[in-house]
Parts: sequence; C-alpha cells; structure tokens
Amino acid sequence: MNSAASSNFIAACVDAIGAAHVLTDPHDTTPYLTDWRRRYTGSACAVLCPSTAEEVAAIVRLANQHRVSIVPQGGNTGLVGGATPDTSGAQAVLSLRRLNRVRDVDPHNNTITVEAGVVLADVQARAEAAARLFPLSLAAQGSCTIGGNLSTNAGGTGVLRYGNTRELCLGLEVVTPQGELWDGLRGLRKDNTGYDLRDLFIGAEGTLGIITAAVMKLHPQPAARVTALAALPSAHAALDFLSLAQRHAGPLLTGFELMSDFCLRLVNRHFPQMRYPFAEPHAQIVLLELSDSESEEHARALFERMMEAALESGHVEDAVVAENLAQTQAFWNLREHIPLAQAEEGLNIKHDIAVPISRIGHFIAETDALIAKAAPGARMVTFGHLGDGNLHYNVQAPEGGNPKQFLAQYQSTMNQIVYDSVHRHRGSISAEHGIGQLKIDESAHYKSDVEVRLMKTLKAAFDPLNLMNPGKVLR
Amino acid sequence: MNSAASSNFIAACVDAIGAAHVLTDPHDTTPYLTDWRRRYTGSACAVLCPSTAEEVAAIVRLANQHRVSIVPQGGNTGLVGGATPDTSGAQAVLSLRRLNRVRDVDPHNNTITVEAGVVLADVQARAEAAARLFPLSLAAQGSCTIGGNLSTNAGGTGVLRYGNTRELCLGLEVVTPQGELWDGLRGLRKDNTGYDLRDLFIGAEGTLGIITAAVMKLHPQPAARVTALAALPSAHAALDFLSLAQRHAGPLLTGFELMSDFCLRLVNRHFPQMRYPFAEPHAQIVLLELSDSESEEHARALFERMMEAALESGHVEDAVVAENLAQTQAFWNLREHIPLAQAEEGLNIKHDIAVPISRIGHFIAETDALIAKAAPGARMVTFGHLGDGNLHYNVQAPEGGNPKQFLAQYQSTMNQIVYDSVHRHRGSISAEHGIGQLKIDESAHYKSDVEVRLMKTLKAAFDPLNLMNPGKVLR
Repeated sequence: MNSAASSNFIAACVDAIGAAHVLTDPHDTTPYLTDWRRRYTGSACAVLCPSTAEEVAAIVRLANQHRVSIVPQGGNTGLVGGATPDTSGAQAVLSLRRLNRVRDVDPHNNTITVEAGVVLADVQARAEAAARLFPLSLAAQGSCTIGGNLSTNAGGTGVLRYGNTRELCLGLEVVTPQGELWDGLRGLRKDNTGYDLRDLFIGAEGTLGIITAAVMKLHPQPAARVTALAALPSAHAALDFLSLAQRHAGPLLTGFELMSDFCLRLVNRHFPQMRYPFAEPHAQIVLLELSDSESEEHARALFERMMEAALESGHVEDAVVAENLAQTQAFWNLREHIPLAQAEEGLNIKHDIAVPISRIGHFIAETDALIAKAAPGARMVTFGHLGDGNLHYNVQAPEGGNPKQFLAQYQSTMNQIVYDSVHRHRGSISAEHGIGQLKIDESAHYKSDVEVRLMKTLKAAFDPLNLMNPGKVLR
Repeated sequence: MNSAASSNFIAACVDAIGAAHVLTDPHDTTPYLTDWRRRYTGSACAVLCPSTAEEVAAIVRLANQHRVSIVPQGGNTGLVGGATPDTSGAQAVLSLRRLNRVRDVDPHNNTITVEAGVVLADVQARAEAAARLFPLSLAAQGSCTIGGNLSTNAGGTGVLRYGNTRELCLGLEVVTPQGELWDGLRGLRKDNTGYDLRDLFIGAEGTLGIITAAVMKLHPQPAARVTALAALPSAHAALDFLSLAQRHAGPLLTGFELMSDFCLRLVNRHFPQMRYPFAEPHAQIVLLELSDSESEEHARALFERMMEAALESGHVEDAVVAENLAQTQAFWNLREHIPLAQAEEGLNIKHDIAVPISRIGHFIAETDALIAKAAPGARMVTFGHLGDGNLHYNVQAPEGGNPKQFLAQYQSTMNQIVYDSVHRHRGSISAEHGIGQLKIDESAHYKSDVEVRLMKTLKAAFDPLNLMNPGKVLR
C-alpha cells in the first residue's frame, strides 16, 4: 500500500468518525503500538477509535475499499502480541475502548449485555450491583476489556467451575470482514437453529471479524468463599486428591491450584512477610476454594470433612482451613505472589500449557528430567490451575546463574523440550493466552495438516482479502 | 446421478467395507428410510454401515469420486427429519451404529472417549461404572447415539446445571467432506490454539462433516437427588421463584420444570392413578430437583429452607418436598407423563421454542391471547425447562373438537403466531431439536440476511460439492 492510499483511507475515516478519533500523531498512537510485555513494537497509519458498532462497520467498509488491514485492540493486555500491528506502517489499529456501554442487565435471565470495550472489572461490578456474579477473573481485570477476553477466550481462576470466557458467552454482535453487522445478541440457553457462529468468532483473535458486543452469563452470588491449603507428597497425589475433593464438594469446588515447594520458597525469599504455610516442607501445596451458597460455616465444615478423609486415605500430609476472610485472602495472596517472586528472581522461560488432568504427574516428571539433562541446575517454577490441567511451567536459571545469559542460551531449546512433551501428552501449547504472533510457528508445527487446512479454509472463506488482523493465528 | 454411477459407487463401497455392510435390499434398508415420528420417508441407493472412522473416510472419498451425497444417521430418533434421505433414491444413508466402541474412560481427567454410534444410555452406564456422572439425559436415551446427540446439540433435562451436549464435549474426531480424518480428540479444559472447529461440527446435523468419535466430559456423581413441587399463581411468579431457588441452592439446583395446571389435569384425566399433587388448583406447578454432593438429608433441609422463604415472600402458594426416592421418582413421572397424556388427548400442534428466561411470562401471556383470538377454545399445553427458557408450547383442539381437523385447519396459522411471537422476544424457533428438513424455511425466514450468508459461506467453504446431508439446515 502506498501512502496516497493510506491518506485517502485516513481522510475517509475522519469523515466517518470525526478527526478527534483518528489518531496519527506519534504522541497519541505510541501507547497502542507496543504490547503489554514489551516484546513487540509495530507501526500504524492510524489508530481509529470509533464509539459504536455502526462506526466500526463503516471503518471496515472503508478498509475494504482502500485495502487497509485492521488490527483490533481492546485493553492491550494480551500476552502473545495479538493486538500489535506489524512494522510496515500500513496497518490501522482499531481500538474498541470507546464501545464501553453496558447495554442491559437482566437478573431474571442471568445475563449482561456489554459492548466490547467495557473493562472486565466493570462487568464484574455491574453484575454485583444486580446481586449476581460474573465469574471471569484474571490479573489484568482492571484494564483488559471483555472484547479482548472473548477474542482470546481468556481463562483465569474460575474455569474449574464456570468455564472459560467461551462458556460464559451466550451471544455476540460482530462486524464481518466485509463491514456488515451481524446481530447475534441472543440471551438463550438453548438454540439449535444452525451453525455455531458465536464460537467461531470467540478465540479467533480478531482474524475472522470484530466483536462489538456480547451477551454474557451471570451466576448467583455465593454466600461465602473459603479457602484451604493442603500439603501433598507429589503431583500424582494431587490427582487423587482432586477426585476426592470433587466427590465431597461437587460444584462448590471453584478453585484447585497447584504450587510446588520451590514456588512457595521463592515467594518467601522475596516477600519475607509471606511465610511458608506449613511447619515442614512438602513437595506440593494445593490451594482449594469453595464457593458456598449456604454459609461460611457450611463451607468450613465441608472442608473439615474433606481434609479428614484425605489425611486418612494418605493423599494429603497436612492441611489448614482458612478461619476467616482475611486468611482466605492470605492464601490467595501466596498464590498470586508466585509470578511476582519469579520476576524478582530474574528473567525466566515461561510456558502456558495444558494437558489432560490425568497426565499432569507424568508430564511434570518426564519434562523435569529432560530439562535437568539439557540444563543442569535449572530450577522449575511449576504452578497453575490443576483442576483445569493448566500449568504455568516456567524455567529459571540455576541458583546464582545469570538469568539473561540463561534465557539467551536456552529459550528455544526449552520451548522445544516443553512443547514436544506437551504434544506427546496430547496437550495444548497455549492454554489461556492464544497464538497471536508469538506462537504462530509452533502452532502450525504441532497441528495436523488437516487442522491447519480447515483453519485456512475458514479464514479464506470469511476474509478473502486478508484484512482482519493478518499475520496473527495463521500465516 | 444415473443408476450406472450409483452401481459403481455401491460396488466400490462393497470393496471398501464388505458386502455384508452395504444394504440395498428394501427389507434391510426400510428401517433407515423413515424418521422416528413417521413424517418423512425417503429412498436411498444404499445404506452403508462402516465400523471404523477409516471406513467412514473411505466411503466419503468414494462419494466424492462418484458424486453421491451422504446422509449420516445415528439412532434415527431425531424429530426434524435430519437423518432421512430425500426421495430421489440417489443419496446414500451412512449409519454410524457400528462405530460403537468406548475407546477410553479417564476418571482423573473426568472424560470418556466414545465412538459416534455408542448409545447414550451406554455412555451413562460406563460413566457410572467409573463412579462418574454423564449428565446428558433425554427420552430417547435407550436408542439415540452420542454422534446424533452431538450433531443436533441435544438438550434434555440436565441443561440448567450441565449445559447442552455442546457444553459436555471437549474434543471430536471428524471425517471432512473430502474424506480426510481430523483428529481433534483432545481432553483439555483449556486450549487456545486457533479456531474452534469442534463447535462448528457440533449442531451442524452432518452438513459440514461426519463426527466419528468424541471426548465427553464427566462429572462427580451426586450423593443424592431430591425433588420438590411448588404451586404458583403465575408464570411471572415462577421467574422470581427461580432467582430465589438459585440464590439458595446455587449449582445444586439441577432441575426447574414448569407445568401448567392444565398439563397436570390432562395427566390425571388419562392416567387417573396420577393425582393432581395439591389439594387446591394452582395456575402453575414447578418441579425442582437438587443434586447434592452431601446427602439426601442435606438436600431436604435445603429445600425446606428454600420453600419457607418462598412461601413467606409470596412467590409460592404451596409446596411439597419428596420424602424418599419413590416420591422423587413420582414427581418426575408426573412431568414425563405430560407428552403421553397429550398424545392420548389427540393430535396437537407442537413447538419447541426458547426465549430469554425473563421473557417467559410475557411470551406466554401474549401468545396465549393471540391463539385464543385465532382459534377460540384452543387449549394450551405449556410445559418445559423453565430454567433454560425452553418451553414445549403446544396447542390442542378445543374440548370435544376434532383434533385431526383442527390440525389441518390451524397448523400453519399457529406456527406463524408462535414463531412470530418467539421472534419478537428474541427467542429460538428450535431450542433442542434442530432444523433438519422440518424447519428449514422457517429458519431462513427468521434469521437475518447476514447470518444466512455467513452460514452459506461456511457450507460452501467446507463442502463445495454439497455432498454432506444436502437439503438439511440450509437450502
């Protein structure tokens, strides 16, 4: 694309949405051009900030006319560079942040209808104001947007009970790559009238169209949330303990997070006020959460029975149930400080992977051994949502080693060891974060030819001009 | 297609899967050519009964070569003619029933991997043998197959808590319209590596490919199931009562079925041993079910508290909690005898619709009034899964009228009244049953042009030769 075409497109966008919402000055556009982890910096002919779905559709029609490709962006908190333009300067960033209206809250239907740019924390707050729970919860919730959550099918800490963002969505409004507006804003639990377009746009990272609004599911607010910590001899034991906990608590079990001994020692090293929670060291610690519709007392009594049974059967070596809200929060704090402690310890090689839950013990044992052989002394920071089979399986330089040098030397080797191992166990190389531009080659490598072909068929059918976030998800 | 081409295709199929599994004798093929409700009878050049996914793929490649279209069929229990061939005699029925292996049960991962032809009741039984629950449950479970359940995204009585078949599936194996085998048999709760092919094949009624196997989710077995009946003054009151019940019971509430006074009087008329469950008549009765991971006592105590609150707040006029398993079953029997009583009363005009739960009261009031105006004396048999917004909204001839004549005179008028009303309330004209051939024109009529175009784009991209169940879902 030449710069004359670009100028014509920009002028047409100014006509469509107003000059104030077409950013071209580097001072204004810079925050949109680098991803959150600062791995990628791109360039753009403009950053476009429409405020309605109709304006989004108008921009996409202009993009078709002028053959300008569009990079949709929400809160710009993604971890795989999915919302960062390339370096050509020919792409336009389309920010959805001004589509930030809550269109409807329907407590009887247990739904909320929100535009794509509504910040996740605001969705949670609006649900709470209607005495309902919107259970999607993740670290970036103060700045990520629901459109971004949908486009990446975000996971987070509530998946065990409530599912991923996909499972929380009933309907969508989408601007197609041709600039048509599809009104699929249905608030229905049952609807079998044709192909599931909704789930096709969810998780497609803006490559098949632009999500402008959604009907999201709400749940009843639990009366109480209580946590407990359990100490276990191994990750294998954690699997039996998960079965036992689910048998006792059924759907009240909303959290089951695994943290290795080393994770908690690392937290204690960098945040000394956060003590190791047991008198003796244990190989693995599990954080459990119950969300109870009766009362805190009921949840605690349920925990007591569960832990008694687990101690008796030998799955658990020690356990402590939170006695109050402060302690419940303190247990979660331990878990949430692991990434922070890890950052303090220095650069490391991160993997967001999933395997079938039953394979977790084998996966960890096998992969740990391969890593120890490839890089003796490397330290494994392994934690995550065990109840979802989702591990943050991160490799840290040996004690006293130089993290930067370690990263430079081992990153690609470690990625290959981990992803090969994930593949052997029929797992996923990106459990929560998506593909974006970061994992595009690995994704193509591990997927079958048939699957890649089906994905390319979809992309070509929906977006034959390849204007929607090209270079993401698929090459 | 001429009969020579047909003979060549049949001969090639005999080579591929053996003569014993290529049925052409009318005596053998007849059961496959009429749908379960006996609305549609088709004709076929052959009924093909492969026993492996590879054999299915081989047949589809032959179908491509000889340009024969394929009608996939499971247990042949569908309600919209989706598995019945047309009358040309040129199509081939492909029965999946011999793909009936349970490939794997993984209790730690809470999954079961089954081939498409496994009967639903057998999936339930295998889950139970592993101390797990497979919650999909519907009237045809003794003969319908999991492949059919997936292809129609079947609903049933457990949707409120466990979702439709879609929500119970983690991975698929599919033969594409080109005869390739896609292995998407993942048992993962989190996997964000590209487009959601799985959900595209689910609910597509065999028009985009043929599902040959699936990884399905299992749940912990509840310790007890207990039911209760509540008597209410109106459908509007039932909405408030649903909110109250969800607040009290959270995810333990697994059933919330609405039955009008007339439904239960009809049951009593034709099955006199089934008494009206309250001393006084009430406008609406709700059947509730709790699935409790603790005990029957706990569930009953929870019901007592819930009903006390509902009586106090005036949402409920009377209530009775089942005192034992026999009574729990008796309450379900009442509900399950409604369609039987209706059949005894004579032919009627059936609608399987969904609206947002909050609209149910308005929908019933408005639509009842329109029907009363169009056909004075017509009797409404309204019942269904209120917790899912799914009503069986059926119209019966006036008392003493001739049902056959009523049907002939009013069917199309009533369909239009009901579906127009559904459309005004942003509902679905097919909540559980799919489109098949029965609702193909209505579906196209009520969907937007954009949506129909997107569906046709998908169909053309995946199946450009239109060999996969043509004439179903889309024209």
